[in-house]
Amino acid sequence: MLPPARPGMALADIDTPSLIVDLDAFERNLDRMARYIAGSKASLRAHSKTHKSPIIARQQIERGAVGVCCQKVSEAEIMVQGGIKSVLVSNEVVGQRKLERLAALARVADVAFCIDTAKNVREANDVAKRFGVQLNALVEIDVGAGRCGAAPGAPAARLASLIAEAPALRFKGLQAYYGAAQHIRAPDERKAAIERAVHLTEQTIEMLHQKALACEIVGGAGTGTFDIEGESGVYNELQAGSYVFMDADYARNESAEGSLFAEFEHALFVCTTVMSRPTDQRAIVDAGLKALAVDSGMPIVHQLPTAEYTKASDEHGVLALEGANTPPVYGEKILLIPGHCDPTVNLYDTYVCVRGLGTANPFVEALWPVAARGAVY
Amino acid sequence: MLPPARPGMALADIDTPSLIVDLDAFERNLDRMARYIAGSKASLRAHSKTHKSPIIARQQIERGAVGVCCQKVSEAEIMVQGGIKSVLVSNEVVGQRKLERLAALARVADVAFCIDTAKNVREANDVAKRFGVQLNALVEIDVGAGRCGAAPGAPAARLASLIAEAPALRFKGLQAYYGAAQHIRAPDERKAAIERAVHLTEQTIEMLHQKALACEIVGGAGTGTFDIEGESGVYNELQAGSYVFMDADYARNESAEGSLFAEFEHALFVCTTVMSRPTDQRAIVDAGLKALAVDSGMPIVHQLPTAEYTKASDEHGVLALEGANTPPVYGEKILLIPGHCDPTVNLYDTYVCVRGLGTANPFVEALWPVAARGAVY
Repeated sequence: MLPPARPGMALADIDTPSLIVDLDAFERNLDRMARYIAGSKASLRAHSKTHKSPIIARQQIERGAVGVCCQKVSEAEIMVQGGIKSVLVSNEVVGQRKLERLAALARVADVAFCIDTAKNVREANDVAKRFGVQLNALVEIDVGAGRCGAAPGAPAARLASLIAEAPALRFKGLQAYYGAAQHIRAPDERKAAIERAVHLTEQTIEMLHQKALACEIVGGAGTGTFDIEGESGVYNELQAGSYVFMDADYARNESAEGSLFAEFEHALFVCTTVMSRPTDQRAIVDAGLKALAVDSGMPIVHQLPTAEYTKASDEHGVLALEGANTPPVYGEKILLIPGHCDPTVNLYDTYVCVRGLGTANPFVEALWPVAARGAVY
Repeated sequence: MLPPARPGMALADIDTPSLIVDLDAFERNLDRMARYIAGSKASLRAHSKTHKSPIIARQQIERGAVGVCCQKVSEAEIMVQGGIKSVLVSNEVVGQRKLERLAALARVADVAFCIDTAKNVREANDVAKRFGVQLNALVEIDVGAGRCGAAPGAPAARLASLIAEAPALRFKGLQAYYGAAQHIRAPDERKAAIERAVHLTEQTIEMLHQKALACEIVGGAGTGTFDIEGESGVYNELQAGSYVFMDADYARNESAEGSLFAEFEHALFVCTTVMSRPTDQRAIVDAGLKALAVDSGMPIVHQLPTAEYTKASDEHGVLALEGANTPPVYGEKILLIPGHCDPTVNLYDTYVCVRGLGTANPFVEALWPVAARGAVY
């Protein structure tokens, strides 16, 4: 397939729908996080599940990140192929095929993964032994997410002991991520949720100390709460990812006075064409469910507050224009802020990176592959 | 990236999450539609936006389809590259770049597209003239969808005249698709909705006859209603697509006694692994928003009615197991029926085609590329 743009092209000439990075806003987001991390006791291990791009991961590492997180072994493979030396699969790795690929990666990079059940300790130890490597393993604990994870406290400590005793595994610490807390709207409730997570994590660390097990990594946190975990004195690796792009769902979070969260800018857009204007109240755009993830709500129409994206079908989006003073005209290209950046990025092969968005002459500075697009294994 | 399977592999060895075609059910679905079409006055122009695969399109044509529909020029390019000779872009084609690509295709295949505004007539005529081709154009009319389309009757007839007068365009007929009607649950309401669409289409055809404009193609219909349009005597090309796979949303349609619709089988699955069993009531699977479209509801757990897929995050799915007699165990692979097949297919590079699903020894018979995955331009 032809790419939707080429370097040097004007924004107006990009084919649609396409995935646009506002490079200026993106770089400011990277710099904001770098400044925060420089002044924090915690490190940044940026989550690459958001961007799926070693090019972006390298920019995060150049600005101080200690490495990246991935959710899948296939993502980790692509990050290592793209020059990333330290990768944590912040997720369970289940089944022989996946563990074998992880063991293969451990020969060429610093990799770690998460475990939440004794059976996985035995499986992983067997594979690592066969590959002649030692695999770094964190115990994932459920600190509120209600997803994977061993129970904090004694159950997690027992699992850590099993890992420490497994000859081909190395106990590396705790994974204590509370995803749903990132999207709690009120800042005080968000803070209270993370404080409970911090407390459970701290209790587990104490139990591990009683067993003489040290946590080199205590990882978790996302864009909605990283400063709370960062100031906890308990977490030492923050796993924020979405801060590079932000999305419409994060825009619905209220933020505490003066918080860094409020400074992050939307840097990811879907460029779409108005392909039909059947009535005064309705515009149809060429970006629907195959161009935008709608699981966290519809996209926001950028800089056109009187137009509302109300409905997505497979290849179409419906904009309601009631009250719009400057309705988009037939053939016009407009930008949408995706409701949820991670699964939107996963729909595209290419980032069209634009310099000077908002100026008189925005242009395509680069095309970056979404290298781990579709890396779900 | 490594593919998730290889031909000959047992179902149990396929990596997850992966997109599975039950070849036996799929072929039965193709045969059912072929039998219907053989006895119908209408033809099948199968919609390839569902499967995005020339391999599947060729099987539809071998069984009597007159060609395929696409929604995007990039899909049409891939269909033509894959040997399909007759392609209707059942959608507007807006902007010079897209029209140029369509004109290029018209040199090597029988292509047509839809128009709903006079401005597009001029644009398309100019491009076709420059390319030295004559482009086949249908007028799209809005018969209830509330999306694109000119108003039926006089406005559509005026547009058809403009096309007929444009030297590098050829007026080919009407596109009259009512997507939302496919998913009306009650069969009598579904029928009433399509009868209104048929009536509006018929009125428009009469106005065209008064202008001596003949409709070679009167196209529309989808899997939920194709037999209604098929028996209308007005539509002559049915554009069903989802019947090859079916999905959980279509399973929620009630069907009329003895209807063919009720015979179509689920033939598309996402194979997923139980990666965590943190509690008796909860299983976590490795297929989330990047492996499944949830816009039309959550997937159904195949052959495990006491397990309910309740929540999708980016890379995880939560199964509620209350009341489950045979809960899936850690490491077990299970099949999910996607809520919506089209955008689910668009997440994958490869169909893993399984023969003998439901028998003692299901195995991978073939891998088919999802050739037009990501073809959104």
